[in-house]
Amino acid sequence: MKVLIINGPNLNMLGKREPEIYGTRTLDDINKEISAFAISRKCKADFFQSNCEGEIITKIQSATCDAIIINAGAYTHYSCAIRDALKGCGITCIEVHMSNVHAREEFRHTSVLSSVVKGVICGFGADSYKLAIEGLVNYKI
Amino acid sequence: MKVLIINGPNLNMLGKREPEIYGTRTLDDINKEISAFAISRKCKADFFQSNCEGEIITKIQSATCDAIIINAGAYTHYSCAIRDALKGCGITCIEVHMSNVHAREEFRHTSVLSSVVKGVICGFGADSYKLAIEGLVNYKI
Amino acid sequence: MKVLIINGPNLNMLGKREPEIYGTRTLDDINKEISAFAISRKCKADFFQSNCEGEIITKIQSATCDAIIINAGAYTHYSCAIRDALKGCGITCIEVHMSNVHAREEFRHTSVLSSVVKGVICGFGADSYKLAIEGLVNYKI
Amino acid sequence: MKVLIINGPNLNMLGKREPEIYGTRTLDDINKEISAFAISRKCKADFFQSNCEGEIITKIQSATCDAIIINAGAYTHYSCAIRDALKGCGITCIEVHMSNVHAREEFRHTSVLSSVVKGVICGFGADSYKLAIEGLVNYKI
Amino acid sequence: MKVLIINGPNLNMLGKREPEIYGTRTLDDINKEISAFAISRKCKADFFQSNCEGEIITKIQSATCDAIIINAGAYTHYSCAIRDALKGCGITCIEVHMSNVHAREEFRHTSVLSSVVKGVICGFGADSYKLAIEGLVNYKI
Amino acid sequence: MKVLIINGPNLNMLGKREPEIYGTRTLDDINKEISAFAISRKCKADFFQSNCEGEIITKIQSATCDAIIINAGAYTHYSCAIRDALKGCGITCIEVHMSNVHAREEFRHTSVLSSVVKGVICGFGADSYKLAIEGLVNYKI
Amino acid sequence: MKVLIINGPNLNMLGKREPEIYGTRTLDDINKEISAFAISRKCKADFFQSNCEGEIITKIQSATCDAIIINAGAYTHYSCAIRDALKGCGITCIEVHMSNVHAREEFRHTSVLSSVVKGVICGFGADSYKLAIEGLVNYKI
Amino acid sequence: MKVLIINGPNLNMLGKREPEIYGTRTLDDINKEISAFAISRKCKADFFQSNCEGEIITKIQSATCDAIIINAGAYTHYSCAIRDALKGCGITCIEVHMSNVHAREEFRHTSVLSSVVKGVICGFGADSYKLAIEGLVNYKI
Amino acid sequence: MKVLIINGPNLNMLGKREPEIYGTRTLDDINKEISAFAISRKCKADFFQSNCEGEIITKIQSATCDAIIINAGAYTHYSCAIRDALKGCGITCIEVHMSNVHAREEFRHTSVLSSVVKGVICGFGADSYKLAIEGLVNYKI
Amino acid sequence: MKVLIINGPNLNMLGKREPEIYGTRTLDDINKEISAFAISRKCKADFFQSNCEGEIITKIQSATCDAIIINAGAYTHYSCAIRDALKGCGITCIEVHMSNVHAREEFRHTSVLSSVVKGVICGFGADSYKLAIEGLVNYKI
Amino acid sequence: MKVLIINGPNLNMLGKREPEIYGTRTLDDINKEISAFAISRKCKADFFQSNCEGEIITKIQSATCDAIIINAGAYTHYSCAIRDALKGCGITCIEVHMSNVHAREEFRHTSVLSSVVKGVICGFGADSYKLAIEGLVNYKI
Amino acid sequence: MKVLIINGPNLNMLGKREPEIYGTRTLDDINKEISAFAISRKCKADFFQSNCEGEIITKIQSATCDAIIINAGAYTHYSCAIRDALKGCGITCIEVHMSNVHAREEFRHTSVLSSVVKGVICGFGADSYKLAIEGLVNYKI
Repeated sequence: MKVLIINGPNLNMLGKREPEIYGTRTLDDINKEISAFAISRKCKADFFQSNCEGEIITKIQSATCDAIIINAGAYTHYSCAIRDALKGCGITCIEVHMSNVHAREEFRHTSVLSSVVKGVICGFGADSYKLAIEGLVNYKI
Repeated sequence: MKVLIINGPNLNMLGKREPEIYGTRTLDDINKEISAFAISRKCKADFFQSNCEGEIITKIQSATCDAIIINAGAYTHYSCAIRDALKGCGITCIEVHMSNVHAREEFRHTSVLSSVVKGVICGFGADSYKLAIEGLVNYKI
Repeated sequence: MKVLIINGPNLNMLGKREPEIYGTRTLDDINKEISAFAISRKCKADFFQSNCEGEIITKIQSATCDAIIINAGAYTHYSCAIRDALKGCGITCIEVHMSNVHAREEFRHTSVLSSVVKGVICGFGADSYKLAIEGLVNYKI
Repeated sequence: MKVLIINGPNLNMLGKREPEIYGTRTLDDINKEISAFAISRKCKADFFQSNCEGEIITKIQSATCDAIIINAGAYTHYSCAIRDALKGCGITCIEVHMSNVHAREEFRHTSVLSSVVKGVICGFGADSYKLAIEGLVNYKI
Repeated sequence: MKVLIINGPNLNMLGKREPEIYGTRTLDDINKEISAFAISRKCKADFFQSNCEGEIITKIQSATCDAIIINAGAYTHYSCAIRDALKGCGITCIEVHMSNVHAREEFRHTSVLSSVVKGVICGFGADSYKLAIEGLVNYKI
Repeated sequence: MKVLIINGPNLNMLGKREPEIYGTRTLDDINKEISAFAISRKCKADFFQSNCEGEIITKIQSATCDAIIINAGAYTHYSCAIRDALKGCGITCIEVHMSNVHAREEFRHTSVLSSVVKGVICGFGADSYKLAIEGLVNYKI
Repeated sequence: MKVLIINGPNLNMLGKREPEIYGTRTLDDINKEISAFAISRKCKADFFQSNCEGEIITKIQSATCDAIIINAGAYTHYSCAIRDALKGCGITCIEVHMSNVHAREEFRHTSVLSSVVKGVICGFGADSYKLAIEGLVNYKI
Repeated sequence: MKVLIINGPNLNMLGKREPEIYGTRTLDDINKEISAFAISRKCKADFFQSNCEGEIITKIQSATCDAIIINAGAYTHYSCAIRDALKGCGITCIEVHMSNVHAREEFRHTSVLSSVVKGVICGFGADSYKLAIEGLVNYKI
Repeated sequence: MKVLIINGPNLNMLGKREPEIYGTRTLDDINKEISAFAISRKCKADFFQSNCEGEIITKIQSATCDAIIINAGAYTHYSCAIRDALKGCGITCIEVHMSNVHAREEFRHTSVLSSVVKGVICGFGADSYKLAIEGLVNYKI
Repeated sequence: MKVLIINGPNLNMLGKREPEIYGTRTLDDINKEISAFAISRKCKADFFQSNCEGEIITKIQSATCDAIIINAGAYTHYSCAIRDALKGCGITCIEVHMSNVHAREEFRHTSVLSSVVKGVICGFGADSYKLAIEGLVNYKI
Repeated sequence: MKVLIINGPNLNMLGKREPEIYGTRTLDDINKEISAFAISRKCKADFFQSNCEGEIITKIQSATCDAIIINAGAYTHYSCAIRDALKGCGITCIEVHMSNVHAREEFRHTSVLSSVVKGVICGFGADSYKLAIEGLVNYKI
Repeated sequence: MKVLIINGPNLNMLGKREPEIYGTRTLDDINKEISAFAISRKCKADFFQSNCEGEIITKIQSATCDAIIINAGAYTHYSCAIRDALKGCGITCIEVHMSNVHAREEFRHTSVLSSVVKGVICGFGADSYKLAIEGLVNYKI
């Protein structure tokens, strides 16, 4: 099983800024951990990060994987264009967030993506991605 | 690790009504599957179901477990009293839903519980519970 | 034809409090009248009243009748859990109110139950129940 | 007892268009059935249909009956002018709808008429009218 | 100076229904009084009443007077079509109401006509019309 | 008949600023005109202007007139305190505005005063005050 | 192909009032131009204009054409009754507006008709009608 | 004078959880203190606590006291059923809260109970109950 | 203990207007009663009333007391400036209302002051002030 | 006449995904058809597609054509930045949509672009573009 | 150049209360600093502070300066009367706030003054005033 | 001190389009003026402009300056992604706008950026940037 993991704006700064809040692990560190986890589940994880809404859309359109796990960052809350890409790509998508977005600012309580994905996982830190893989690989959705 | 799994109103009807929609597995079937999964993770799962808001609150208050996994059914959307119980119990809580609530009726898009739990998982069917256990057991939150 | 008539919170106080407003007939008086009417329509009416949302849900789940007539009292306006029970029970349901709820306080103008029942009748006093039986028994819905 | 039955816009098309949805009975067919039913209740039913808000108002104003049963069609949702006519006419009014309007489009969930009528019945097809007659004739409101 | 006085839906019932609320003067009585008042101001008043939105629009379009005084009844609150007619007719218009609409139901607090007329007068009973004439005749607007 | 005419904030600047918009007549000029008009109606007009909400309230409380005509300027739109003073003073009050407030900024479309006065007149320039006197003096309210 | 072109309230005043805004062409002039255009597309255009909501509904109900092009004027924004007529008539409908309604007052930005028509064209002046014919005649929808 | 003090959901946990926030006094400790205070005011206090909405309603219905003091916890914000019970019971009711609910989460700023009680007291900790007794016992309401 | 009791707009009219509603006791009568009550609690009460928002703010700023009890009248509902003064003054404040504001007009249900005071008491008539003193004097907040 | 046709996010996937919904014609197929149509109208069509909001803005800024036809996809509903580009470019713009956006999800009913374009066409499939050209080329706007 | 600097309610308490939050500089200290800064820019600054909405309005009306810099404190958020005074005074006005109001309570995010001033500066502490002077003196607006 | 000045979408068109509105100075002209001003304040200004949300985010992430001055153009009103970048970058940020956004279209009155910056300046044309530098350089924030 091939899984594409897409990270949206500002997630490339993980571990580089405000480590007291977000921890000291960089996105690369986290991706390596996820990659190893994926292999343990007989699954291959590819990674993509972009701050640009358009590039994320293009990546989704050209995806040739079995599933997409997306943490769209702040685009989660208003990018109807990413929503349309996810809806149209014909691939099973999972929406993840590292933090529990419902316990943060009001504007993070609304996701324009959730209604077009199969499932949503939030609040488990970097493990949110692993749980998504677990959900995709081990079980039949 | 001891985990209490709470199911709210109407979840006791799983498998008994409308099997073409919700499948033929009863809540008991699902609980057995979850129980076995929990054991495989060196974890003990206890189960509680009630249609009564007050009984769910009392159960949360008297819980002596390490974590609570709650699928509060329709109470998710308005029971501030269950919210207060979860917030006050001092136990790590995970909110789960079998279906992707964001792809259903408008009133299911708002949860009054989400802001007081550690994480939320929805859309993975009965596996939503297992992923919650996985998230609780395997990892440090 | 077997009909289950469910009355929600505070309807057990009919005739006992404020008779100048609600009349002097108790719920028992009304139920007897409805029961007789039902028999005249070759139909058997069973009665259930509870102040507890959860008990109402459990009653709906275990109902073995041909139709449910429900006056959910104030739960009408916010109990999505009763809504789910009605939707899931696979039995024809009719929502009734003795008073014309639309001529009363603002919060009574919205029903979360109406969209999952077959029909709604309000404003005919105790006769609202009889009209519901008439609607169920005499005609094919 | 003399009852005036008023049907609003588009109800004249019953049975003529989309019979797979609304059935094959025309408004005339239905009216005949209602008329017979009324007679069986020792009651005389007169019928009026108009697509024009103003004509409906004028009919209400000139009504010399004991009761009005009104299905105002889409005017139900915004015609404050018909509301004023009903409120001012001094005759007992019943609002009916053939379909369960609460299970249809959002805009049909609000009625500007409901607060000035005695009772509301919806969802019983053509029988909604008969139940209204039953409610008016057999019982004292 | 020629003034056209337009009365909307249900105003034809003045004095005929609920005299204890609206008084015993009919619209004819009031119009005669207004007519006499107009003459005392060297002004000629013509009168038009209709329950039909479309007829009111057509009357406004064909008006050949120096000013229009309109009491659009309940159409005041939603008839954007009458609004467009008033805006387009090129004649000075005054909106009047006999009662103080702001002290009545919520829906009467909003007028879709007010922004396209020269002035608004409400709460003076039948004298609202006379004050409008006074405002039009005696002074330069 | 004694009438107190109260003008609220910024009305003291009439004729002093932006004469191309508001004309060159000062509040004094207008008051003289109104005073003369009042005498012609066998009525005595007293005048009070203040920019201070509290002073307007105190003036209303100590008023010993037969009627109050108030143009509360911008306080019209939010001063619940002036509303309470008007409601409590036991004197017939008329709300006036020189301009048609409904044709101006959105915030001017709402008056917190209108529901406690007898009548409202707007859009007749300085004549709005005279029409209010006419409405008060000539007729019985 | 037979096309019925329906114009709603106030459109009969085109060219007669405010020519500096709406041009000097009357509705007749425009209709002749459209008629000629229709013929050039091997299509016959019939025309209907009414200020009355009810007459427009009746016209739609009795239409025997292949397509309806409707400019409902201000009824566009609130006539759910015309919406129901369009939805029920079983004929392909196109909504047109001469002006770009989205660049005008707030209340013109909402159409209750748009969701039941096949397409919407606005902002092309009298050519909006021609484009609608073009869209209907030349192409298969 | 006999006073019934009703505490809603989660108030049974006072002093048992999060003592750094809510203090170390249990509900029993507080009730004893209130009981003693009541006696000092020649008044007898009875106590009832439940997490169940329905049980609270039933308790209110069966109350035989002179006054009810209710802290409905989170039910305060949505239980229209408790509201109806309070309104219908014919006993003077006082709503109390230990904390100042207006200084907490947004959802706690709205009470569906306040409009049917005699008075509201919040923010005085356990003394809120005593002040309610004081208000009931010492003075005539 | 020194307590400053501040009364806002229109409270100076107590007992002078509409005695059938507000009773015949003037603010002076009430203040004397409160003063005596305060002395019985070994506490000194000072009184201040103003119709002017600014004067109330200045009084709060210059207060040298141990506690402030404020009934801000209609300013309660919109005076963010009084809110800031209360928040900034560093003195314990209690908000009181004689009537139950939640049972009156909609606009009285919102207080912009409540979130910055220690407690709120309403509905006990003049005793609301005494209960506030009781709450302040007898107990430690 | 030179026309620039801009397609926004996800329109590059036409014909490649979900052909049962959107047909099998690719954007290239459609563009060729439009190009041929443009030539038949003595007009030259250039095409641009991007998933990136910023690139669309830059294209609009650098456009040297006589008219722009834009189908901004999901950006239609929130891209105020594209709106500003269209408003500032000084070129006649037409907004088009292939589907009838008003018959789809709620969020598609609002366009932030419509108020700054000359006209809007939706619901005619690929012919929406051709009608826009027709509207631009044949007629004077 | 003469600049009038107006400070609204509670700004007179700067440095006197909560110095840990607002610093220890009094309004006098700040005004002296601003005054010196103004002189360095060949400009004369006059100062006015009032807690009273009406006095602020009167000051604006009687201002004879070249520019007004106003920090209206909490009046910023609701005083339409100050807004009218600023709009009518014919003098260039700058709105300033010491704190970043957008990072504080929700109610501070809306200013009813901003739309009638030339510019807004917030978040620079006492320097907000100096920047306003800089903006007024050094440059041509 | 090193300052990075970021300009968002459409600001690259300054001076090139609609000079009668925005002046004839290009962004380059303005940047040169700002650059010279910065040097006079012993400060170095770097400039960045992009129409692409993602590029602006990446620039903020990689910024190595002491302060950021950002005019995000229309992204100001919805780009939560830029907000997150500004919040996370750990650099003092100032939001500027050349025009007074509060005096323009409704949608420009809301900024999603303001709550995460230190200060906001708008309405001073190109001088808004200079004032921001002044605010940053001369003073300690």
